[in-house]
Amino acid sequence: MHTPIQLQEILEKAIVEIVYPKHPSNLYEPIRYIMSLGGKRIRPVMVLMAAELFTDECVKALDVALAIETFHNFTLVHDDIMDNAPLRRGKITVHEKWGVNNAILSGDVMMVESNKHLSKVDISVLKQVLDTFNLTAQGVCEGQQLDMEFEQRGDVSIEEYIEMIRLKTAVLLGGAMKLGAVVGGANQTDADLLYQFGENLGIAFQLQDDILDVYGNPEKFGKQVGGDIISNKKTFLHLKTLALAHGDEAKSLTSVDFDQTEKIDQVTKLYNKYEIKELATAEMDQYLTKALQSLNDLAVADEKKTQFRELVQQIMERDR
Amino acid sequence: MHTPIQLQEILEKAIVEIVYPKHPSNLYEPIRYIMSLGGKRIRPVMVLMAAELFTDECVKALDVALAIETFHNFTLVHDDIMDNAPLRRGKITVHEKWGVNNAILSGDVMMVESNKHLSKVDISVLKQVLDTFNLTAQGVCEGQQLDMEFEQRGDVSIEEYIEMIRLKTAVLLGGAMKLGAVVGGANQTDADLLYQFGENLGIAFQLQDDILDVYGNPEKFGKQVGGDIISNKKTFLHLKTLALAHGDEAKSLTSVDFDQTEKIDQVTKLYNKYEIKELATAEMDQYLTKALQSLNDLAVADEKKTQFRELVQQIMERDR
Repeated sequence: MHTPIQLQEILEKAIVEIVYPKHPSNLYEPIRYIMSLGGKRIRPVMVLMAAELFTDECVKALDVALAIETFHNFTLVHDDIMDNAPLRRGKITVHEKWGVNNAILSGDVMMVESNKHLSKVDISVLKQVLDTFNLTAQGVCEGQQLDMEFEQRGDVSIEEYIEMIRLKTAVLLGGAMKLGAVVGGANQTDADLLYQFGENLGIAFQLQDDILDVYGNPEKFGKQVGGDIISNKKTFLHLKTLALAHGDEAKSLTSVDFDQTEKIDQVTKLYNKYEIKELATAEMDQYLTKALQSLNDLAVADEKKTQFRELVQQIMERDR
Repeated sequence: MHTPIQLQEILEKAIVEIVYPKHPSNLYEPIRYIMSLGGKRIRPVMVLMAAELFTDECVKALDVALAIETFHNFTLVHDDIMDNAPLRRGKITVHEKWGVNNAILSGDVMMVESNKHLSKVDISVLKQVLDTFNLTAQGVCEGQQLDMEFEQRGDVSIEEYIEMIRLKTAVLLGGAMKLGAVVGGANQTDADLLYQFGENLGIAFQLQDDILDVYGNPEKFGKQVGGDIISNKKTFLHLKTLALAHGDEAKSLTSVDFDQTEKIDQVTKLYNKYEIKELATAEMDQYLTKALQSLNDLAVADEKKTQFRELVQQIMERDR
């Protein structure tokens, strides 16, 4: 078995070696660009890790890993257009650099590139791989749609929010795990358990992101602390407070009367009053427990699960 | 064997019966909408016609036909965003009706829907179907990219133009033919011949469209006669005239000094002077001859080819 760091290196090498057509260069340059911006390659690493639970040849899962990473980056390109985002991983976004139309089209062709990677898997698992991937891709699109719609709505429930982050973020982690398992040779039960592991981990991860936005250590957290508060983002913390607050209290959540520091301060005070951090942590821990339960139920040798538990630890202890 | 009209009816029924998820409705409504705008369903009809050359059960090719039609409509949704088009088949475009972001995302999920249709084909041809489809889809994206780039360029050659319409329009007809053949059980040679048939027909069809824009019968041609002239579109006629005209003659091609009728009149006169209609028709006939040659070479009973020859006639004699 490889360590996650080793798998990341295998992936970086494989990503660099992907050959895209040279022409038209403005269609393919944005793909090379976004794929080279890096990140932790968490999703394709998960594919390879899951495969290695069932096979010694993780290279069998490399095409699926590249499909997942390409698909993920495709969603970033299109999401950044929709969100009108100027930066991605600290660099200028594709649509800012090449224009919106070009970004739409490069994104589209990335979807085709994903499918090309997928089509290379062994014929014995091809159908199952396609079904899992398509279900995953569809879920991610649905999640993005709900996320956009929630921005316009004032009545989003906690249940709806969890469903949105499940679709937008968590099904891709679940899908990555399941695809790795399938290509590695897992049976249906184990593949489904790994899906559950990934999905619940994904929900927990997003809830932790909501918490860290407010309570994170500014030196460790990659983004601006309080960013969600400034943009009135309907996070778990925001929605839970809306549900618990009395009278006019909740007004500060969406107020534009304060300056930024004052608003972060006001809203954090309100969160503290209703112990929102603790409630969000409890919610997150529920999903974490479910994820670990699926891992326990998995019919593979316990020592093989160690890396997965460490991965959970690593992700969840970003700053608590 | 079914007639093209019968195949069209089979398709219309199958399209109506596609079940999309109910939720989120704003993601799936645009798909139902664009898929219901109709058109002649020429691409999926071609899939079924090609399949029927090799099998009595054209229903075997229905999933591929739906994949091709869904993919085609996906390209329309995204192209209409890029072209800022208000109308499609006389109805308001998806991005005008639901907004650009929603249209991007519904288009994305249509790509997934295409792949879902594809994944249902018999496992014995699945890999070949995916490879053919992905190559086709990639070509279409490249064609759209070139088309957009040509708008900004003043030095587009005839060869580049033919390559652009090959990619943007013709590979999808070729791909449709080949996919139908593969699913119907054709051998590689016949599948490739049908690809060539479709591709050359597609190029001829687009050249005819260029001609009809200027010389079409206004009562029979679906669009405004002279539309390409008004918008300075770099069609075959435009580019050929640029190549042949002397001195300042070509200026009228891109002039904004005339009113619309006067401009159409001026440019048509210039086309006539250089016998552009005849040159374009000769170019078109070359591709048509190639298409019919591939059809002749096909190792199926000649009577089975009759419908294909009629289809060619029908398409090519829209108004000559």
